[in-house]
Amino acid sequence: MRFSVDGEYLDRPSFRVEGDSIVLLDQRRLPSETVLLELSDLDGFVEAIRTLAVRGAPAIGAFGGCALSICYSNGVDTAYERLKCSRPTAVDLVNCLDEVKTAFDGDGVDGARKRAMEIVERTISACKRIGEVGAELIFDKARVMTHCNAGALATLDWGTALAPIRIAYRDGRDPFVWVSETRPLLQGSRLTAWELVQEGIQHKVVVDSASGYLMRKGEVDLVIVGADRVCRNGDFANKIGTYGKAVMAHELGIPFYVAFPETTFDRGCACGDGIPIEERGEEEVVEFAESRISPSGSRGFNPAFDVTPGEYVTGYITERGILDRDDLMKKTT
Amino acid sequence: MRFSVDGEYLDRPSFRVEGDSIVLLDQRRLPSETVLLELSDLDGFVEAIRTLAVRGAPAIGAFGGCALSICYSNGVDTAYERLKCSRPTAVDLVNCLDEVKTAFDGDGVDGARKRAMEIVERTISACKRIGEVGAELIFDKARVMTHCNAGALATLDWGTALAPIRIAYRDGRDPFVWVSETRPLLQGSRLTAWELVQEGIQHKVVVDSASGYLMRKGEVDLVIVGADRVCRNGDFANKIGTYGKAVMAHELGIPFYVAFPETTFDRGCACGDGIPIEERGEEEVVEFAESRISPSGSRGFNPAFDVTPGEYVTGYITERGILDRDDLMKKTT
Repeated sequence: MRFSVDGEYLDRPSFRVEGDSIVLLDQRRLPSETVLLELSDLDGFVEAIRTLAVRGAPAIGAFGGCALSICYSNGVDTAYERLKCSRPTAVDLVNCLDEVKTAFDGDGVDGARKRAMEIVERTISACKRIGEVGAELIFDKARVMTHCNAGALATLDWGTALAPIRIAYRDGRDPFVWVSETRPLLQGSRLTAWELVQEGIQHKVVVDSASGYLMRKGEVDLVIVGADRVCRNGDFANKIGTYGKAVMAHELGIPFYVAFPETTFDRGCACGDGIPIEERGEEEVVEFAESRISPSGSRGFNPAFDVTPGEYVTGYITERGILDRDDLMKKTT
Repeated sequence: MRFSVDGEYLDRPSFRVEGDSIVLLDQRRLPSETVLLELSDLDGFVEAIRTLAVRGAPAIGAFGGCALSICYSNGVDTAYERLKCSRPTAVDLVNCLDEVKTAFDGDGVDGARKRAMEIVERTISACKRIGEVGAELIFDKARVMTHCNAGALATLDWGTALAPIRIAYRDGRDPFVWVSETRPLLQGSRLTAWELVQEGIQHKVVVDSASGYLMRKGEVDLVIVGADRVCRNGDFANKIGTYGKAVMAHELGIPFYVAFPETTFDRGCACGDGIPIEERGEEEVVEFAESRISPSGSRGFNPAFDVTPGEYVTGYITERGILDRDDLMKKTT
């Protein structure tokens, strides 16, 4: 895929490795500004993950792996622990860090660098495959609701939830996307909309609260979201608000799909109760663009994810096919 | 109730009539600025309703009635139609305009003015009674979720959804309120939080998408919302996002109440399908404080209300008591 950034094209919009640096598109500033950051030290890598300059479970997994391999090259031995703690919910980060660490322990710096690049390529091909597998769900004129950004920016290319929509569009179908804005950080309104504009895919942005209205009015044919961690029983964590959409879709008989690559599956996690949920700063809720929204005497609370029970999921769109809950343990290994 | 505004106190925070003018607290600018507007002509009255300087179904009903009576004094004969069309969903506006028009047709300008002031006093006492009736639901330390602003600002005093919380607090119980911020115009984060700070009632502001997370975690004992129009079968319209909260509460067995005075009941409306839903400008979604959030190539869609079926409602808190669906037709007449 090619994204236009100030007249240049980025083939992989979230980040790329250049020698001992990572060049990334700063997602905090999209879409009003398109700024490329070049990072080469551990503090910069951790800060980029923590503040969502790079975000999305598959993207921070691959980014973390690449960052760790660069830190190994530079002899920084605290990198694994610090990167691992930068954000808690997306299991991709831990999975990819573990892979690179194991390669380093076995084959040193070169092994770690090689493994990091393998993760990058594997993530891209997994997402493309997710798109191909999921595209069968996207009939002509299908109206798809998504939440947050599970696109190329959140992975490395193609996306997870957006990949089937992209492939269907390239196959000549004409999908329409309801973009749920995704408060507090507006990844839907800022990032998913930006990706869809780049590709010319029809869409409209709505407040998160409009989901139920649209579903009940018959304006949504299916819902597809990404995931930050999928458990053995099919429960999964994703951006706050996903659970509510799943409950409403279930109540109204609207198919609800979760799209994710293998790195997002947590074999060690039996059910959603075991997923750590990140709580971010309350200022993300009670302020906007550093201006106060709420009165100064009010506090906010800001859980960044919620857990959706597997019972609300129609299917899991993975690089191995569209799975049901029973398949999940058997086939995602 | 007394609200502090720049060191002065307003006994009735939304508006008051002074001669042939209405003085109102501009809710578009709260909580960062507390500005009183003095309006005396039809254009100003219509604009205040349309742009949400005054808002909340009972408040715009009473405001519309007062505005119409002033226009009758001034011999403006287009006032009824123009005020009626200023916002479509809240039935209070039509109900109160009809009352004042009938009084004018029978008893002239004096009759209209008298009837408008009766509506004001009746609304205040209805809301106080709603608070007394509903307070029995608010046990000590009850954690109540609400949506939008159904407080004193949205009525004339006391509020609808906030009235039971206020009365319980004054009775010595210590409720906690989850304030759903209410995108796009943030009436929860700006207005409900402002009212709760003024009274010292504990609360936290959350994004609308956090409702399901909090309910599923057992952090919500009950939900109370206001209404813009209640139908004979118990279906009701309220701020966009209310429907989703009702579905989730139902799914999780959490009591869900709707608080409203008689002027919000629409005897002529058999079910929710008959309620006109206001669609507001897309700029409210894709911009914030006149800055663009979404890319310029993206469109927004902005339904301001949704309809919640009566089957999700545990009880209707009215000045006649807490009613169930069967009672609604019999007792709200």
